[in-house]
Amino acid sequence: MSMDRNACMALDASDPIAHLRDRFVMPEGEIYLDGNSLGCLPKSVAPRLVQAVAQEWGTGLIRSWNDAGWYLAPQRVGAKIAALIGAAADEVIVTDSTSVNLFKVLAAGIRMQAGRSKILGVAGDFPTDSYIAQGIAAFAGVRFLRMNADDLIASIDEDVAIVSLTHVNYKSGFVHDMGAITDAAHNKGALIVWDLSHSAGAMDLHVDALRADFAVGCGYKYLNGGPGAPAYVFVAKRHQAQFQHPLTGWFGHADPFAFAEEFTPAAGMERVLSGTPPILSLLALDAALDVFDGVKMEQVRTKSESLTRLFVSLACERLLGHGFVLASPHDAGKRGAQISLAHEQGYAICQALIARGVVGDFRAPDLVRFGLAPAFTRHIDVYDAVGIIDSVMKTRAWDVPAFQSRKAVT
Amino acid sequence: MSMDRNACMALDASDPIAHLRDRFVMPEGEIYLDGNSLGCLPKSVAPRLVQAVAQEWGTGLIRSWNDAGWYLAPQRVGAKIAALIGAAADEVIVTDSTSVNLFKVLAAGIRMQAGRSKILGVAGDFPTDSYIAQGIAAFAGVRFLRMNADDLIASIDEDVAIVSLTHVNYKSGFVHDMGAITDAAHNKGALIVWDLSHSAGAMDLHVDALRADFAVGCGYKYLNGGPGAPAYVFVAKRHQAQFQHPLTGWFGHADPFAFAEEFTPAAGMERVLSGTPPILSLLALDAALDVFDGVKMEQVRTKSESLTRLFVSLACERLLGHGFVLASPHDAGKRGAQISLAHEQGYAICQALIARGVVGDFRAPDLVRFGLAPAFTRHIDVYDAVGIIDSVMKTRAWDVPAFQSRKAVT
Repeated sequence: MSMDRNACMALDASDPIAHLRDRFVMPEGEIYLDGNSLGCLPKSVAPRLVQAVAQEWGTGLIRSWNDAGWYLAPQRVGAKIAALIGAAADEVIVTDSTSVNLFKVLAAGIRMQAGRSKILGVAGDFPTDSYIAQGIAAFAGVRFLRMNADDLIASIDEDVAIVSLTHVNYKSGFVHDMGAITDAAHNKGALIVWDLSHSAGAMDLHVDALRADFAVGCGYKYLNGGPGAPAYVFVAKRHQAQFQHPLTGWFGHADPFAFAEEFTPAAGMERVLSGTPPILSLLALDAALDVFDGVKMEQVRTKSESLTRLFVSLACERLLGHGFVLASPHDAGKRGAQISLAHEQGYAICQALIARGVVGDFRAPDLVRFGLAPAFTRHIDVYDAVGIIDSVMKTRAWDVPAFQSRKAVT
Repeated sequence: MSMDRNACMALDASDPIAHLRDRFVMPEGEIYLDGNSLGCLPKSVAPRLVQAVAQEWGTGLIRSWNDAGWYLAPQRVGAKIAALIGAAADEVIVTDSTSVNLFKVLAAGIRMQAGRSKILGVAGDFPTDSYIAQGIAAFAGVRFLRMNADDLIASIDEDVAIVSLTHVNYKSGFVHDMGAITDAAHNKGALIVWDLSHSAGAMDLHVDALRADFAVGCGYKYLNGGPGAPAYVFVAKRHQAQFQHPLTGWFGHADPFAFAEEFTPAAGMERVLSGTPPILSLLALDAALDVFDGVKMEQVRTKSESLTRLFVSLACERLLGHGFVLASPHDAGKRGAQISLAHEQGYAICQALIARGVVGDFRAPDLVRFGLAPAFTRHIDVYDAVGIIDSVMKTRAWDVPAFQSRKAVT
């Protein structure tokens, strides 16, 4: 089936969540396909920050911890994210970074699984997840082992304390089967932690229904919370009373403002907090999450599959002949909201595309990633982007020195 | 000597850093004496955040990690703080919270001191410092012991891995002798970490000259970085190559964007980073620190001592007769930038003062704290505040039910 631009416009016209795009400040004159690195700016953010700075900080000052609701922001924003991942409101809290939160969760999980000596991950997972697992493993005297994804389930034995996986692979977009792997872990008495950084806000998640134990994730990709937005932690209700991690800062205390000498963990998710949260970044995320007001995540996932299907279909027609290899799963149900194309000139191609207004990103050694954030990406964006990629390849627009030199961050 | 209001105005007129107050949005109609909890809003912050949100995030999007300097913000802001605490620019980095950073420093310190089994602190230190020390001690299998401040130096023996102290006590404002304690620790082969949360931005600090090993501190008190502003870490150059902590997130990697499978720590202070930093909060702190442009910290300390001396002098004349007890050191050289008065009705008095526009805060069981942030507090503010306190006590304005009921955060 060949799709033309009119057919794409028709798909957008019948998209039940097309109106979400109007909730964003979209960059002019370009097609932004990097929402999997940094989501676009929701219109609700700037007014919220102006209020937070001018009124709440500038005038309310210290009183705003109570009066403006700063103090309960980690819980309030957590409840918004809970609704997006299939958790109860009191199972998610926003705090720190994904890395720091993963450390807490792994430390708590190891403690709950005394006598077991392994953390299991997969090769090729997002680096910070592996690095943190290496860090906690060395510190806690357990081993961190990375399996091939295909061997993972068979590798879970009764010496595995915890299985730690990113739900959607950052390079390929491959989606792990959350239900099957969670069950496999539980069958051997292992706990599981899911990093949802590349799925929350783009997929239909059900951490409670699938009996996940823990989850972490960042606020700045499909949740559109802004650069380095605070991250979140999910701890299933059944584990909260046993959840103890060593980053016992005062915000995790049962009564922080009693200024007691001894640490007593808070009863619920507050025990996952550590120090004072970065309120301005947290309030930006708070406002950003209003993008999802009135939306069902199954609608988001349906649109996302439609977008990636369209991209793959057009890529097969127009791009694979230029030497690209599809590096994402062929089955839309097995990939997240991104499409990755491998090409030996991937870096230069990515730069040439950015110069022409198609903003994806590059991951070594050869992947060009296109994030199709369902909240603000249209079918016509996909159509137009593929046209520009095709044109860049036909004209060899990437083949100039300016597009070959690498920057620190891409 | 009795000071009248004109004499206070004369002190302000000759204050060489009086102009710093113009760099803040000061709350109208009140005397804000809580800069030791949350500093006032510098005028430079709002425009910087507007630019960061509208231009850098909204338009620049992912490119702003390079083009707007987000990626190097932890180092850039760290260098600004280094100048305020007597460190070299490449010895300080901004990241995470004070609690999380203290965890890293204690973990690294314990690792460097293998064979030693104790962390030493003092009783009555800021709770999060004790809680984190308890957390790491339990996790790393060492002991955390709290001494009375008077016994501290005598308690340092060759089994002490690390001495961890808040430089200025949050309740009394008592200042530890950084040079003497640092030397005492070193004499027994112990390392020392100073929490500078209650001193940086208000005192003249010399961490390098005094051979401190590590320091941490928050960005939201006298540094005026906004609610929950990111914190900082100082690691003396001589220790950086050995500094290894378990929170090994990707921003601490030698080459984060190589996405390598194995963690290799960055060469310098970058290894102290963990996850992606909260850029909006970080940029607010970045802008806020421009308050100190062109200022010598000895000028700040000189003014601070003048302010606390004035407060104590006026309190002796007008307040101690109302049942207040001076809970801060009598010697200006031995206290930070706050004065604490103990009174059995402290909580209600604090509320009555806030209602009359004198904003201090309360710390259980009986302390009313007045932070005299030298960057924006004038001598006439101190004079007027003491007059209002005197009036509240004479009229028993605190003795109404509305001022007795406690809120979560004060």
